[in-house]
Amino acid sequence: MEKNGYSIFESELKVRPDDIDMFNHVHNSKYFDYVLAARYDQMEQFYKMPMESFLSSGFGWVVRTAHVDFKRALVMGDTIKVRTGILTINEKGCRVQFEIENIRTKKIASDGWFDYVLIDISTGKGSKVNAEMIKAYSI
Amino acid sequence: MEKNGYSIFESELKVRPDDIDMFNHVHNSKYFDYVLAARYDQMEQFYKMPMESFLSSGFGWVVRTAHVDFKRALVMGDTIKVRTGILTINEKGCRVQFEIENIRTKKIASDGWFDYVLIDISTGKGSKVNAEMIKAYSI
Amino acid sequence: MEKNGYSIFESELKVRPDDIDMFNHVHNSKYFDYVLAARYDQMEQFYKMPMESFLSSGFGWVVRTAHVDFKRALVMGDTIKVRTGILTINEKGCRVQFEIENIRTKKIASDGWFDYVLIDISTGKGSKVNAEMIKAYSI
Amino acid sequence: MEKNGYSIFESELKVRPDDIDMFNHVHNSKYFDYVLAARYDQMEQFYKMPMESFLSSGFGWVVRTAHVDFKRALVMGDTIKVRTGILTINEKGCRVQFEIENIRTKKIASDGWFDYVLIDISTGKGSKVNAEMIKAYSI
Repeated sequence: MEKNGYSIFESELKVRPDDIDMFNHVHNSKYFDYVLAARYDQMEQFYKMPMESFLSSGFGWVVRTAHVDFKRALVMGDTIKVRTGILTINEKGCRVQFEIENIRTKKIASDGWFDYVLIDISTGKGSKVNAEMIKAYSI
Repeated sequence: MEKNGYSIFESELKVRPDDIDMFNHVHNSKYFDYVLAARYDQMEQFYKMPMESFLSSGFGWVVRTAHVDFKRALVMGDTIKVRTGILTINEKGCRVQFEIENIRTKKIASDGWFDYVLIDISTGKGSKVNAEMIKAYSI
Repeated sequence: MEKNGYSIFESELKVRPDDIDMFNHVHNSKYFDYVLAARYDQMEQFYKMPMESFLSSGFGWVVRTAHVDFKRALVMGDTIKVRTGILTINEKGCRVQFEIENIRTKKIASDGWFDYVLIDISTGKGSKVNAEMIKAYSI
Repeated sequence: MEKNGYSIFESELKVRPDDIDMFNHVHNSKYFDYVLAARYDQMEQFYKMPMESFLSSGFGWVVRTAHVDFKRALVMGDTIKVRTGILTINEKGCRVQFEIENIRTKKIASDGWFDYVLIDISTGKGSKVNAEMIKAYSI
Protein backbone atom coordinates (compact mmCIF):
# COMPACT_ATOMS: atom_id res chain seq x y z
CA MET A 1 0.00 0.00 0.00
CA GLU A 2 1.05 3.57 -0.58
CA LYS A 3 2.44 5.22 2.56
CA ASN A 4 1.27 8.78 3.06
CA GLY A 5 0.29 10.87 6.06
CA TYR A 6 -2.85 8.81 6.76
CA SER A 7 -3.13 5.81 9.08
CA ILE A 8 -3.64 2.31 7.79
CA PHE A 9 -6.03 0.13 9.77
CA GLU A 10 -6.51 -3.61 9.77
CA SER A 11 -9.50 -5.90 10.35
CA GLU A 12 -9.55 -9.68 10.40
CA LEU A 13 -12.23 -11.73 8.66
CA LYS A 14 -12.85 -15.42 7.99
CA VAL A 15 -14.04 -16.66 4.60
CA ARG A 16 -17.58 -18.11 4.86
CA PRO A 17 -18.60 -21.24 2.92
CA ASP A 18 -21.24 -19.25 1.03
CA ASP A 19 -18.41 -17.04 -0.34
CA ILE A 20 -17.00 -19.98 -2.32
CA ASP A 21 -17.85 -20.31 -6.00
CA MET A 22 -17.86 -23.03 -8.64
CA PHE A 23 -14.05 -22.81 -8.97
CA ASN A 24 -13.69 -23.55 -5.24
CA HIS A 25 -12.38 -20.01 -4.83
CA VAL A 26 -13.88 -16.99 -3.12
CA HIS A 27 -16.20 -15.40 -5.69
CA ASN A 28 -14.89 -12.10 -7.11
CA SER A 29 -17.71 -9.97 -5.76
CA LYS A 30 -17.04 -11.07 -2.18
CA TYR A 31 -13.72 -9.19 -2.04
CA PHE A 32 -15.85 -6.14 -2.34
CA ASP A 33 -17.92 -7.21 0.63
CA TYR A 34 -14.78 -7.90 2.66
CA VAL A 35 -13.42 -4.40 2.06
CA LEU A 36 -16.76 -2.78 2.88
CA ALA A 37 -17.03 -4.87 6.05
CA ALA A 38 -13.51 -3.87 7.12
CA ARG A 39 -14.19 -0.23 6.38
CA TYR A 40 -17.39 -0.23 8.48
CA ASP A 41 -15.52 -1.83 11.30
CA GLN A 42 -12.71 0.71 11.06
CA MET A 43 -15.05 3.71 10.78
CA GLU A 44 -16.46 2.73 14.15
CA GLN A 45 -13.35 1.49 15.90
CA PHE A 46 -10.68 3.93 14.74
CA TYR A 47 -12.34 7.00 13.27
CA LYS A 48 -15.08 7.07 15.92
CA MET A 49 -17.55 7.94 13.16
CA PRO A 50 -19.53 4.76 12.55
CA MET A 51 -21.71 4.53 9.44
CA GLU A 52 -24.70 4.54 11.82
CA SER A 53 -23.86 8.09 12.94
CA PHE A 54 -23.78 9.23 9.30
CA LEU A 55 -27.08 7.48 8.64
CA SER A 56 -28.77 8.99 11.69
CA SER A 57 -27.69 12.48 10.61
CA GLY A 58 -29.15 11.85 7.15
CA PHE A 59 -25.94 11.08 5.24
CA GLY A 60 -24.30 7.99 3.86
CA TRP A 61 -21.04 7.12 2.12
CA VAL A 62 -21.52 5.37 -1.20
CA VAL A 63 -18.99 3.91 -3.60
CA ARG A 64 -18.56 5.92 -6.82
CA THR A 65 -15.75 3.90 -8.41
CA ALA A 66 -14.11 0.62 -7.47
CA HIS A 67 -10.82 -0.73 -8.78
CA VAL A 68 -9.89 -4.22 -7.63
CA ASP A 69 -6.84 -6.34 -8.54
CA PHE A 70 -7.21 -10.05 -7.91
CA LYS A 71 -3.73 -11.43 -7.34
CA ARG A 72 -4.15 -14.83 -5.70
CA ALA A 73 -7.29 -16.86 -5.04
CA LEU A 74 -8.71 -17.25 -1.53
CA VAL A 75 -10.11 -20.67 -0.64
CA MET A 76 -12.36 -22.36 1.93
CA GLY A 77 -11.06 -21.98 5.46
CA ASP A 78 -8.86 -18.94 4.75
CA THR A 79 -8.68 -16.08 7.22
CA ILE A 80 -7.73 -12.64 5.94
CA LYS A 81 -6.41 -9.30 7.10
CA VAL A 82 -8.07 -6.38 5.33
CA ARG A 83 -6.01 -3.19 5.55
CA THR A 84 -7.47 0.14 4.41
CA GLY A 85 -6.29 3.73 4.50
CA ILE A 86 -7.23 7.11 3.06
CA LEU A 87 -5.33 8.10 -0.09
CA THR A 88 -6.97 11.48 -0.58
CA ILE A 89 -9.89 13.28 1.07
CA ASN A 90 -11.50 16.60 0.28
CA GLU A 91 -14.97 18.13 0.20
CA LYS A 92 -15.92 16.07 -2.85
CA GLY A 93 -15.17 12.69 -1.29
CA CYS A 94 -12.33 10.34 -0.51
CA ARG A 95 -10.25 7.62 -2.12
CA VAL A 96 -9.58 4.60 0.10
CA GLN A 97 -6.82 2.13 -0.76
CA PHE A 98 -6.98 -1.45 0.49
CA GLU A 99 -5.13 -4.72 0.47
CA ILE A 100 -6.22 -8.18 1.55
CA GLU A 101 -3.59 -10.47 3.02
CA ASN A 102 -4.15 -14.20 3.28
CA ILE A 103 -3.00 -15.13 6.79
CA ARG A 104 -2.28 -18.73 5.74
CA THR A 105 0.12 -17.79 2.92
CA LYS A 106 1.18 -14.31 4.15
CA LYS A 107 0.69 -13.15 0.54
CA ILE A 108 -1.50 -10.39 -0.86
CA ALA A 109 -4.70 -11.85 -2.32
CA SER A 110 -6.04 -8.57 -3.67
CA ASP A 111 -5.50 -4.83 -3.60
CA GLY A 112 -7.01 -1.70 -5.11
CA TRP A 113 -8.97 1.40 -4.20
CA PHE A 114 -12.52 2.70 -3.81
CA ASP A 115 -13.76 6.26 -4.38
CA TYR A 116 -16.48 7.25 -1.95
CA VAL A 117 -18.84 10.18 -2.12
CA LEU A 118 -21.16 11.43 0.58
CA ILE A 119 -24.87 11.47 -0.21
CA ASP A 120 -27.89 13.04 1.39
CA ILE A 121 -30.05 9.97 2.14
CA SER A 122 -33.36 11.80 1.67
CA THR A 123 -32.57 13.10 -1.84
CA GLY A 124 -29.95 10.57 -2.95
CA LYS A 125 -27.86 13.52 -4.22
CA GLY A 126 -24.19 14.13 -3.49
CA SER A 127 -23.32 16.30 -0.49
CA LYS A 128 -20.19 18.18 0.59
CA VAL A 129 -17.85 16.46 3.01
CA ASN A 130 -17.57 19.07 5.78
CA ALA A 131 -14.42 20.17 7.64
CA GLU A 132 -15.31 18.18 10.76
CA MET A 133 -15.64 14.94 8.77
CA ILE A 134 -12.37 15.62 6.90
CA LYS A 135 -10.63 16.22 10.22
CA ALA A 136 -12.02 13.01 11.75
CA TYR A 137 -10.67 10.98 8.83
CA SER A 138 -7.31 12.78 8.74
CA ILE A 139 -5.61 10.63 11.33
CA MET B 1 -48.58 -28.36 -3.83
CA GLU B 2 -51.71 -28.58 -1.78
CA LYS B 3 -54.81 -27.46 -3.67
CA ASN B 4 -57.15 -25.32 -1.64
CA GLY B 5 -59.34 -22.32 -2.37
CA TYR B 6 -56.36 -20.02 -2.96
CA SER B 7 -54.69 -19.28 -6.28
CA ILE B 8 -51.23 -20.55 -7.12
CA PHE B 9 -48.97 -18.13 -8.99
CA GLU B 10 -45.80 -18.75 -10.93
CA SER B 11 -42.66 -16.71 -11.61
CA GLU B 12 -39.69 -17.62 -13.75
CA LEU B 13 -36.09 -17.05 -12.67
CA LYS B 14 -32.65 -17.93 -14.02
CA VAL B 15 -29.89 -19.22 -11.78
CA ARG B 16 -27.02 -16.68 -11.55
CA PRO B 17 -23.34 -17.77 -11.50
CA ASP B 18 -22.92 -16.25 -8.03
CA ASP B 19 -25.63 -18.66 -6.76
CA ILE B 20 -23.36 -21.65 -7.41
CA ASP B 21 -21.37 -23.12 -4.53
CA MET B 22 -18.31 -25.33 -4.09
CA PHE B 23 -20.34 -28.44 -5.03
CA ASN B 24 -21.24 -26.82 -8.37
CA HIS B 25 -24.84 -26.68 -7.14
CA VAL B 26 -27.04 -23.75 -6.22
CA HIS B 27 -26.19 -22.96 -2.59
CA ASN B 28 -28.95 -23.90 -0.12
CA SER B 29 -29.64 -20.38 1.05
CA LYS B 30 -30.37 -19.18 -2.50
CA TYR B 31 -33.60 -21.21 -2.70
CA PHE B 32 -34.80 -18.91 0.00
CA ASP B 33 -33.93 -15.89 -2.11
CA TYR B 34 -35.71 -17.40 -5.11
CA VAL B 35 -38.95 -17.87 -3.18
CA LEU B 36 -38.78 -14.36 -1.71
CA ALA B 37 -38.10 -12.93 -5.18
CA ALA B 38 -41.07 -14.82 -6.64
CA ARG B 39 -43.31 -13.73 -3.80
CA TYR B 40 -42.41 -10.06 -4.25
CA ASP B 41 -43.09 -10.36 -7.93
CA GLN B 42 -46.45 -12.01 -7.29
CA MET B 43 -47.51 -9.54 -4.58
CA GLU B 44 -47.16 -6.82 -7.17
CA GLN B 45 -48.40 -8.59 -10.26
CA PHE B 46 -51.29 -10.69 -8.97
CA TYR B 47 -52.35 -9.42 -5.56
CA LYS B 48 -51.89 -5.75 -6.55
CA MET B 49 -50.36 -5.16 -3.11
CA PRO B 50 -46.64 -4.77 -3.75
CA MET B 51 -44.26 -4.88 -0.79
CA GLU B 52 -43.55 -1.19 -1.51
CA SER B 53 -47.16 -0.29 -0.65
CA PHE B 54 -46.84 -2.10 2.68
CA LEU B 55 -43.54 -0.34 3.36
CA SER B 56 -44.90 3.09 2.51
CA SER B 57 -47.83 2.54 4.91
CA GLY B 58 -45.38 1.59 7.66
CA PHE B 59 -45.78 -2.20 7.52
CA GLY B 60 -43.70 -5.08 6.26
CA TRP B 61 -44.10 -8.85 5.92
CA VAL B 62 -41.33 -10.77 7.59
CA VAL B 63 -40.65 -14.51 7.67
CA ARG B 64 -41.31 -16.09 11.07
CA THR B 65 -40.61 -19.73 10.14
CA ALA B 66 -39.20 -21.37 7.02
CA HIS B 67 -39.38 -25.03 6.10
CA VAL B 68 -37.53 -26.04 2.95
CA ASP B 69 -37.11 -29.49 1.39
CA PHE B 70 -34.22 -29.82 -1.04
CA LYS B 71 -35.13 -32.61 -3.46
CA ARG B 72 -32.81 -32.25 -6.45
CA ALA B 73 -29.84 -29.96 -6.99
CA LEU B 74 -30.03 -27.00 -9.35
CA VAL B 75 -26.95 -26.29 -11.46
CA MET B 76 -25.35 -23.53 -13.54
CA GLY B 77 -27.56 -22.45 -16.43
CA ASP B 78 -30.83 -23.78 -14.97
CA THR B 79 -34.02 -21.79 -15.28
CA ILE B 80 -36.75 -22.34 -12.71
CA LYS B 81 -40.46 -21.84 -12.15
CA VAL B 82 -41.28 -20.76 -8.61
CA ARG B 83 -44.91 -21.40 -7.68
CA THR B 84 -46.39 -20.03 -4.47
CA GLY B 85 -49.84 -19.94 -2.93
CA ILE B 86 -51.51 -19.13 0.38
CA LEU B 87 -52.16 -22.12 2.63
CA THR B 88 -53.79 -20.21 5.48
CA ILE B 89 -54.29 -16.54 6.28
CA ASN B 90 -55.78 -14.85 9.32
CA GLU B 91 -55.19 -11.77 11.45
CA LYS B 92 -52.02 -13.29 12.89
CA GLY B 93 -50.28 -13.89 9.56
CA CYS B 94 -50.18 -16.29 6.66
CA ARG B 95 -48.54 -19.52 5.61
CA VAL B 96 -47.30 -19.61 2.01
CA GLN B 97 -46.47 -22.90 0.30
CA PHE B 98 -44.02 -23.03 -2.59
CA GLU B 99 -42.42 -25.36 -5.06
CA ILE B 100 -39.51 -24.81 -7.43
CA GLU B 101 -39.57 -26.64 -10.74
CA ASN B 102 -36.44 -27.04 -12.82
CA ILE B 103 -37.52 -26.22 -16.38
CA ARG B 104 -34.70 -28.32 -17.87
CA THR B 105 -35.70 -31.53 -16.08
CA LYS B 106 -39.40 -30.77 -15.41
CA LYS B 107 -38.80 -32.09 -11.89
CA ILE B 108 -39.36 -30.44 -8.51
CA ALA B 109 -36.05 -29.14 -7.13
CA SER B 110 -37.47 -27.97 -3.81
CA ASP B 111 -40.71 -27.37 -1.94
CA GLY B 112 -41.86 -26.21 1.49
CA TRP B 113 -43.60 -23.35 3.23
CA PHE B 114 -42.93 -19.99 4.89
CA ASP B 115 -44.89 -18.42 7.75
CA TYR B 116 -45.11 -14.66 7.44
CA VAL B 117 -46.16 -12.12 10.06
CA LEU B 118 -46.88 -8.47 9.55
CA ILE B 119 -44.74 -6.00 11.48
CA ASP B 120 -44.97 -2.31 12.20
CA ILE B 121 -41.72 -1.02 10.67
CA SER B 122 -41.27 1.80 13.20
CA THR B 123 -41.50 -0.45 16.29
CA GLY B 124 -40.48 -3.78 14.79
CA LYS B 125 -43.42 -5.37 16.67
CA GLY B 126 -46.04 -7.67 15.18
CA SER B 127 -49.22 -6.11 13.85
CA LYS B 128 -52.70 -7.47 13.01
CA VAL B 129 -53.38 -8.40 9.40
CA ASN B 130 -56.53 -6.38 8.69
CA ALA B 131 -59.65 -7.49 6.82
CA GLU B 132 -58.73 -5.57 3.67
CA MET B 133 -55.35 -7.29 3.44
CA ILE B 134 -56.88 -10.71 4.08
CA LYS B 135 -59.38 -10.05 1.32
CA ALA B 136 -56.68 -8.95 -1.14
CA TYR B 137 -54.76 -12.18 -0.57
CA SER B 138 -57.88 -14.40 -0.66
CA ILE B 139 -57.93 -14.81 -4.40
CA MET C 1 -31.63 -26.53 22.48
CA GLU C 2 -32.53 -30.09 23.28
CA LYS C 3 -30.02 -31.75 25.62
CA ASN C 4 -29.17 -35.31 24.66
CA GLY C 5 -26.02 -37.42 24.72
CA TYR C 6 -24.33 -35.34 21.99
CA SER C 7 -22.04 -32.36 22.48
CA ILE C 8 -23.10 -28.84 21.59
CA PHE C 9 -20.42 -26.67 19.97
CA GLU C 10 -20.26 -22.93 19.55
CA SER C 11 -18.75 -20.63 16.92
CA GLU C 12 -18.65 -16.85 16.90
CA LEU C 13 -19.43 -14.78 13.80
CA LYS C 14 -19.85 -11.09 13.01
CA VAL C 15 -22.66 -9.84 10.77
CA ARG C 16 -21.25 -8.37 7.50
CA PRO C 17 -22.75 -5.22 5.92
CA ASP C 18 -23.68 -7.22 2.81
CA ASP C 19 -25.92 -9.42 5.02
CA ILE C 20 -28.23 -6.48 5.74
CA ASP C 21 -31.42 -6.15 3.73
CA MET C 22 -33.90 -3.39 2.87
CA PHE C 23 -35.48 -3.63 6.34
CA ASN C 24 -32.06 -2.92 7.92
CA HIS C 25 -32.12 -6.47 9.27
CA VAL C 26 -30.01 -9.48 8.41
CA HIS C 27 -31.68 -11.06 5.36
CA ASN C 28 -33.46 -14.34 6.12
CA SER C 29 -31.28 -16.47 3.90
CA LYS C 30 -28.10 -15.38 5.71
CA TYR C 31 -29.07 -17.27 8.88
CA PHE C 32 -28.67 -20.32 6.75
CA ASP C 33 -25.16 -19.27 5.77
CA TYR C 34 -24.27 -18.58 9.40
CA VAL C 35 -25.29 -22.09 10.48
CA LEU C 36 -23.42 -23.70 7.58
CA ALA C 37 -20.34 -21.61 8.38
CA ALA C 38 -20.48 -22.62 12.05
CA ARG C 39 -20.98 -26.26 11.15
CA TYR C 40 -17.95 -26.27 8.82
CA ASP C 41 -15.88 -24.69 11.53
CA GLN C 42 -17.04 -27.24 14.08
CA MET C 43 -16.55 -30.23 11.77
CA GLU C 44 -12.91 -29.25 11.54
CA GLN C 45 -12.26 -28.02 15.06
CA PHE C 46 -14.22 -30.46 17.20
CA TYR C 47 -15.09 -33.53 15.15
CA LYS C 48 -11.69 -33.59 13.41
CA MET C 49 -13.50 -34.45 10.18
CA PRO C 50 -13.42 -31.27 8.12
CA MET C 51 -15.64 -31.04 5.05
CA GLU C 52 -12.42 -31.02 3.00
CA SER C 53 -11.65 -34.60 4.14
CA PHE C 54 -15.12 -35.73 3.02
CA LEU C 55 -14.66 -33.98 -0.30
CA SER C 56 -11.22 -35.47 -0.91
CA SER C 57 -12.61 -38.96 -0.25
CA GLY C 58 -15.41 -38.31 -2.76
CA PHE C 59 -18.24 -37.56 -0.34
CA GLY C 60 -20.09 -34.46 0.77
CA TRP C 61 -22.79 -33.59 3.30
CA VAL C 62 -25.74 -31.85 1.75
CA VAL C 63 -28.85 -30.36 3.37
CA ARG C 64 -32.03 -32.35 2.70
CA THR C 65 -34.45 -30.34 4.84
CA ALA C 66 -34.09 -27.07 6.71
CA HIS C 67 -36.39 -25.73 9.40
CA VAL C 68 -35.61 -22.24 10.66
CA ASP C 69 -37.46 -20.13 13.25
CA PHE C 70 -36.73 -16.41 13.12
CA LYS C 71 -37.33 -15.05 16.60
CA ARG C 72 -35.62 -11.66 16.76
CA ALA C 73 -33.97 -9.62 14.00
CA LEU C 74 -30.20 -9.25 13.81
CA VAL C 75 -28.89 -5.83 12.80
CA MET C 76 -25.73 -4.14 11.52
CA GLY C 77 -22.80 -4.54 13.89
CA ASP C 78 -24.20 -7.58 15.74
CA THR C 79 -21.93 -10.45 16.71
CA ILE C 80 -23.48 -13.88 17.18
CA LYS C 81 -22.81 -17.23 18.79
CA VAL C 82 -23.95 -20.14 16.63
CA ARG C 83 -24.43 -23.34 18.63
CA THR C 84 -25.05 -26.66 16.89
CA GLY C 85 -25.35 -30.25 18.00
CA ILE C 86 -26.41 -33.63 16.65
CA LEU C 87 -30.01 -34.60 17.41
CA THR C 88 -29.94 -37.99 15.68
CA ILE C 89 -27.43 -39.79 13.47
CA ASN C 90 -27.66 -43.10 11.66
CA GLU C 91 -26.62 -44.63 8.37
CA LYS C 92 -29.18 -42.54 6.48
CA GLY C 93 -27.93 -39.16 7.71
CA CYS C 94 -28.11 -36.83 10.64
CA ARG C 95 -30.30 -34.10 12.09
CA VAL C 96 -28.42 -31.10 13.46
CA GLN C 97 -30.13 -28.64 15.80
CA PHE C 98 -28.90 -25.05 16.07
CA GLU C 99 -29.51 -21.79 17.83
CA ILE C 100 -28.12 -18.34 17.15
CA GLU C 101 -27.58 -16.06 20.14
CA ASN C 102 -27.15 -12.32 19.69
CA ILE C 103 -24.19 -11.41 21.93
CA ARG C 104 -25.42 -7.81 22.27
CA THR C 105 -28.87 -8.76 23.63
CA LYS C 106 -28.06 -12.23 25.03
CA LYS C 107 -31.31 -13.37 23.36
CA ILE C 108 -31.93 -16.12 20.84
CA ALA C 109 -32.26 -14.65 17.34
CA SER C 110 -33.10 -17.92 15.61
CA ASP C 111 -33.23 -21.67 16.14
CA GLY C 112 -34.17 -24.79 14.20
CA TRP C 113 -32.68 -27.88 12.63
CA PHE C 114 -31.14 -29.17 9.39
CA ASP C 115 -31.29 -32.72 8.03
CA TYR C 116 -28.12 -33.71 6.26
CA VAL C 117 -27.51 -36.65 3.96
CA LEU C 118 -24.21 -37.92 2.64
CA ILE C 119 -23.75 -37.94 -1.12
CA ASP C 120 -21.23 -39.50 -3.46
CA ILE C 121 -19.83 -36.43 -5.23
CA SER C 122 -19.19 -38.23 -8.53
CA THR C 123 -22.77 -39.53 -8.93
CA GLY C 124 -24.66 -37.02 -6.80
CA LYS C 125 -26.55 -39.97 -5.26
CA GLY C 126 -27.07 -40.59 -1.56
CA SER C 127 -24.53 -42.76 0.24
CA LYS C 128 -24.53 -44.67 3.56
CA VAL C 129 -23.01 -42.95 6.57
CA ASN C 130 -20.51 -45.58 7.73
CA ALA C 131 -19.77 -46.70 11.30
CA GLU C 132 -16.53 -44.73 11.49
CA MET C 133 -18.29 -41.48 10.55
CA ILE C 134 -21.11 -42.15 13.02
CA LYS C 135 -18.55 -42.74 15.75
CA ALA C 136 -16.65 -39.54 14.93
CA TYR C 137 -19.83 -37.51 15.29
CA SER C 138 -21.02 -39.31 18.43
CA ILE C 139 -19.09 -37.17 20.86
CA MET D 1 -19.34 2.00 -24.60
CA GLU D 2 -16.36 2.20 -26.87
CA LYS D 3 -17.16 1.11 -30.44
CA ASN D 4 -14.47 -1.03 -32.01
CA GLY D 5 -14.46 -4.01 -34.32
CA TYR D 6 -16.00 -6.34 -31.70
CA SER D 7 -19.68 -7.08 -31.20
CA ILE D 8 -21.61 -5.81 -28.19
CA PHE D 9 -24.11 -8.23 -26.70
CA GLU D 10 -26.98 -7.62 -24.32
CA SER D 11 -28.64 -9.67 -21.59
CA GLU D 12 -31.63 -8.76 -19.47
CA LEU D 13 -31.78 -9.35 -15.72
CA LYS D 14 -34.19 -8.47 -12.92
CA VAL D 15 -32.96 -7.19 -9.55
CA ARG D 16 -33.69 -9.72 -6.78
CA PRO D 17 -34.84 -8.62 -3.30
CA ASP D 18 -31.72 -10.16 -1.77
CA ASP D 19 -29.61 -7.76 -3.88
CA ILE D 20 -30.97 -4.76 -1.95
CA ASP D 21 -28.89 -3.31 0.87
CA MET D 22 -29.47 -1.11 3.91
CA PHE D 23 -29.68 2.00 1.70
CA ASN D 24 -32.56 0.41 -0.26
CA HIS D 25 -30.21 0.26 -3.25
CA VAL D 26 -28.64 -2.67 -5.03
CA HIS D 27 -25.48 -3.48 -3.05
CA ASN D 28 -22.23 -2.53 -4.86
CA SER D 29 -20.92 -6.06 -5.14
CA LYS D 30 -24.04 -7.23 -6.99
CA TYR D 31 -23.17 -5.20 -10.11
CA PHE D 32 -20.24 -7.52 -10.35
CA ASP D 33 -22.53 -10.53 -10.24
CA TYR D 34 -24.79 -9.00 -12.89
CA VAL D 35 -21.88 -8.53 -15.31
CA LEU D 36 -20.57 -12.05 -14.69
CA ALA D 37 -24.06 -13.47 -15.20
CA ALA D 38 -24.47 -11.56 -18.47
CA ARG D 39 -21.06 -12.64 -19.67
CA TYR D 40 -21.79 -16.33 -18.97
CA ASP D 41 -25.05 -16.02 -20.82
CA GLN D 42 -23.34 -14.36 -23.78
CA MET D 43 -20.45 -16.82 -23.90
CA GLU D 44 -23.00 -19.54 -24.42
CA GLN D 45 -25.52 -17.77 -26.60
CA PHE D 46 -23.35 -15.66 -28.90
CA TYR D 47 -19.78 -16.94 -28.78
CA LYS D 48 -20.87 -20.59 -28.70
CA MET D 49 -18.13 -21.21 -26.12
CA PRO D 50 -19.95 -21.60 -22.82
CA MET D 51 -17.93 -21.51 -19.59
CA GLU D 52 -18.88 -25.19 -19.17
CA SER D 53 -16.87 -26.09 -22.30
CA PHE D 54 -13.81 -24.30 -20.90
CA LEU D 55 -14.27 -26.06 -17.57
CA SER D 56 -14.63 -29.49 -19.17
CA SER D 57 -11.41 -28.96 -21.15
CA GLY D 58 -9.60 -28.01 -17.92
CA PHE D 59 -9.59 -24.22 -18.33
CA GLY D 60 -11.45 -21.33 -16.77
CA TRP D 61 -11.65 -17.57 -17.24
CA VAL D 62 -10.96 -15.65 -14.07
CA VAL D 63 -11.10 -11.93 -13.39
CA ARG D 64 -7.65 -10.34 -12.91
CA THR D 65 -8.75 -6.71 -12.53
CA ALA D 66 -12.16 -5.08 -12.21
CA HIS D 67 -12.96 -1.41 -12.67
CA VAL D 68 -16.54 -0.39 -11.94
CA ASP D 69 -18.15 3.06 -12.05
CA PHE D 70 -21.40 3.41 -10.13
CA LYS D 71 -23.37 6.19 -11.75
CA ARG D 72 -26.94 5.84 -10.56
CA ALA D 73 -28.43 3.54 -7.93
CA LEU D 74 -30.61 0.59 -8.88
CA VAL D 75 -33.61 -0.11 -6.67
CA MET D 76 -36.10 -2.87 -5.85
CA GLY D 77 -38.11 -3.95 -8.87
CA ASP D 78 -35.66 -2.61 -11.47
CA THR D 79 -34.91 -4.60 -14.60
CA ILE D 80 -31.60 -4.04 -16.34
CA LYS D 81 -29.87 -4.55 -19.68
CA VAL D 82 -26.25 -5.63 -19.30
CA ARG D 83 -24.20 -4.98 -22.42
CA THR D 84 -20.67 -6.35 -22.78
CA GLY D 85 -18.08 -6.45 -25.53
CA ILE D 86 -14.42 -7.26 -26.03
CA LEU D 87 -12.08 -4.25 -25.90
CA THR D 88 -8.85 -6.18 -26.52
CA ILE D 89 -7.96 -9.86 -26.73
CA ASN D 90 -4.60 -11.56 -27.16
CA GLU D 91 -2.79 -14.64 -25.92
CA LYS D 92 -2.46 -13.14 -22.44
CA GLY D 93 -6.16 -12.52 -21.88
CA CYS D 94 -8.93 -10.12 -22.72
CA ARG D 95 -10.46 -6.88 -21.52
CA VAL D 96 -14.25 -6.79 -21.51
CA GLN D 97 -16.12 -3.49 -21.29
CA PHE D 98 -19.66 -3.37 -19.90
CA GLU D 99 -22.53 -1.04 -19.18
CA ILE D 100 -25.72 -1.59 -17.22
CA GLU D 101 -28.82 0.27 -18.36
CA ASN D 102 -31.80 0.66 -16.07
CA ILE D 103 -34.82 -0.17 -18.26
CA ARG D 104 -37.14 1.95 -16.07
CA THR D 105 -35.11 5.16 -16.43
CA LYS D 106 -33.29 4.38 -19.71
CA LYS D 107 -30.14 5.71 -17.99
CA ILE D 108 -26.77 4.05 -17.41
CA ALA D 109 -26.55 2.74 -13.84
CA SER D 110 -22.94 1.56 -14.10
CA ASP D 111 -20.12 0.96 -16.55
CA GLY D 112 -16.51 -0.20 -16.53
CA TRP D 113 -14.31 -3.08 -17.59
CA PHE D 114 -12.95 -6.43 -16.44
CA ASP D 115 -9.61 -8.00 -17.36
CA TYR D 116 -9.84 -11.76 -17.70
CA VAL D 117 -7.03 -14.30 -17.83
CA LEU D 118 -7.30 -17.96 -18.69
CA ILE D 119 -6.20 -20.43 -16.03
CA ASP D 120 -5.44 -24.12 -16.03
CA ILE D 121 -7.95 -25.42 -13.47
CA SER D 122 -5.70 -28.25 -12.24
CA THR D 123 -2.72 -26.01 -11.43
CA GLY D 124 -4.47 -22.66 -10.94
CA LYS D 125 -1.72 -21.08 -13.11
CA GLY D 126 -2.26 -18.78 -16.06
CA SER D 127 -2.50 -20.34 -19.50
CA LYS D 128 -2.15 -18.96 -23.05
CA VAL D 129 -5.34 -18.02 -24.88
CA ASN D 130 -4.97 -20.02 -28.10
CA ALA D 131 -5.73 -18.90 -31.64
CA GLU D 132 -9.01 -20.82 -31.80
CA MET D 133 -10.32 -19.10 -28.67
CA ILE D 134 -9.20 -15.67 -29.91
CA LYS D 135 -10.99 -16.32 -33.18
CA ALA D 136 -14.20 -17.41 -31.45
CA TYR D 137 -14.27 -14.19 -29.43
CA SER D 138 -13.33 -11.97 -32.38
CA ILE D 139 -16.85 -11.53 -33.68
